Amino acid sequence: MSTYTAINLVKRPTGGPIGPDLFEKVEKTIPEPADGEFLVRQTHMSLDPAMLGWMSPDTDSYVPPVELGTVMRSSGLGEVVSSRHPDFQEGDRVMGMFGWQEYALSDGSGVNRLDADLSPEAVLSVMALPGLTATKGLYDFGHPRSGETLIVTGAAGSVGSIVGQLAKAEGLNVIGVAGSDEKCDWIVNTLGFDGAINYRTDDLAARLDELAPDGIDVFFENTGGDIQPLIVERMNAHGRIVVCGMIADYTGKPKPGPNWIPVIKKRLTIQGFTMPDHLHEAPTILGKLMPHVQSGRIQYRSHTLKGLDSAMTGLNLFFTGENKGKLIVEL
Amino acid sequence: MSTYTAINLVKRPTGGPIGPDLFEKVEKTIPEPADGEFLVRQTHMSLDPAMLGWMSPDTDSYVPPVELGTVMRSSGLGEVVSSRHPDFQEGDRVMGMFGWQEYALSDGSGVNRLDADLSPEAVLSVMALPGLTATKGLYDFGHPRSGETLIVTGAAGSVGSIVGQLAKAEGLNVIGVAGSDEKCDWIVNTLGFDGAINYRTDDLAARLDELAPDGIDVFFENTGGDIQPLIVERMNAHGRIVVCGMIADYTGKPKPGPNWIPVIKKRLTIQGFTMPDHLHEAPTILGKLMPHVQSGRIQYRSHTLKGLDSAMTGLNLFFTGENKGKLIVEL
Repeated sequence: MSTYTAINLVKRPTGGPIGPDLFEKVEKTIPEPADGEFLVRQTHMSLDPAMLGWMSPDTDSYVPPVELGTVMRSSGLGEVVSSRHPDFQEGDRVMGMFGWQEYALSDGSGVNRLDADLSPEAVLSVMALPGLTATKGLYDFGHPRSGETLIVTGAAGSVGSIVGQLAKAEGLNVIGVAGSDEKCDWIVNTLGFDGAINYRTDDLAARLDELAPDGIDVFFENTGGDIQPLIVERMNAHGRIVVCGMIADYTGKPKPGPNWIPVIKKRLTIQGFTMPDHLHEAPTILGKLMPHVQSGRIQYRSHTLKGLDSAMTGLNLFFTGENKGKLIVEL
Repeated sequence: MSTYTAINLVKRPTGGPIGPDLFEKVEKTIPEPADGEFLVRQTHMSLDPAMLGWMSPDTDSYVPPVELGTVMRSSGLGEVVSSRHPDFQEGDRVMGMFGWQEYALSDGSGVNRLDADLSPEAVLSVMALPGLTATKGLYDFGHPRSGETLIVTGAAGSVGSIVGQLAKAEGLNVIGVAGSDEKCDWIVNTLGFDGAINYRTDDLAARLDELAPDGIDVFFENTGGDIQPLIVERMNAHGRIVVCGMIADYTGKPKPGPNWIPVIKKRLTIQGFTMPDHLHEAPTILGKLMPHVQSGRIQYRSHTLKGLDSAMTGLNLFFTGENKGKLIVEL
């Protein structure tokens, strides 16, 4: 009987970097599907900032944490290699929550068959969690209107880059905040954003005043950090703030946020959201996103790590901002 | 020709107490109404926290500041003493933005005739700005549901006391935050709130845990202050925060607010609002409030100052919290 490798979470992060000490590699026997099941050989795993939350002990979170001693949770792509399920055949390409392992058994729940046209990178970078999150957040909570100004943090990231491109397609003035000149260059010169702010090196207030002289109508927040209160102060009346991520505060002690006086003066709406609440709306959301993908408007880049082991340190790239595009582990 | 007294704003506050140095008393000749106008002798003026904003130089605010050298803006009640307006007769009791003066000319815009049954105190404490603000904010942004827990700051104030009473009528568990034991006693033993927190003397975190063991669903914010982040941390999933006032930060340097991690984790909605945006909805809002008033469910107390001059120092009572109920100046 052949075996495969899986990685279990065995320790919760305590603020330091995410590394192999939190995990345990185990060898398992490749199972046979029972009636109503199928076996997937995973080829690509997605690494997402949300996974940092899944590892944490906080039971308050919107998704229960991964239990210690079980396979680390993740979404990924793979191929059905044997099936006793009526809806999935050998050779089908599928996406689902397969976890950090080379093989996974499934009863089909939460698993989708994939269009053969799309590359694994396109699926994981656009048509999966990043694209759903960007589209849902922008349209249903950001309510973008042509001529308005939108600012997005984590703008070169998988969600932020799609938010900005969709907003450009809707006729907004789009400003992206990112952590390197290279990323700023990419979002402006390749993705077509109107301006970019390097949060590590720019004079934040001066650049905001320069790029948004008429104030900001929509703020799509993926990161937190020092620029957050400066953006809030510059919101226009009836502005919308979509709070999707706070990566800057996921480790260490959370910093204070903006004072709420502008919330009253500008009658702002601040809406926190997480995609798991809205997965049942995926068909509708993908229906909004798909035309933009098909017309070639949505560009993306992925950052591929090789081999299952690379997942164990790969999540740190979110903290350092060293990833260039959607993080994918190729198995 | 007889004269009357008016008080002009001549200096903007700079963080210290509000006092006579910011104002100038002027004597004017009582005017005769032109065609389409009427003359009001004002009997009661309302003092409201919003007036602090109207005095400030911040042009960003939702209502333009009072111009220096003009009559200080305020709402009030009075009697029509002469009229050349088809819709208003001598003897009518009216409410409008009459300003800090004994007499005012009006063309009728923004002026409402009053039901003769209601006392001036009932009108200004419940059926005017406080009741409109409480009702609009609670129902349209707080979305209260029976069995949920609501917390309101400034709970003994004119808006907060109505918010809490309406929420009790809707079947919620209601906690009020106030600044003295006397106020805490009043909201629990007279108004029927389920619990009260004295923000000056109580152990805030411990009291919140005791009074809201299952978390908080609706947070109606009138004050700001140290309890704000402690409440945000205790919000339940899909909680609603209505930001109506930040009196604790209207003078001095605004303090930082809560970190936004709970905004994501709990998918909170934070909605800033000000009543001037919604004055056109007043009939609908009063329609919701009136049955509660008529059934005697809404109790109030007013704090009456005597004479026009008392307005000049009266606004300070909002900062010190010494007012006991709706502030009214009787002329």
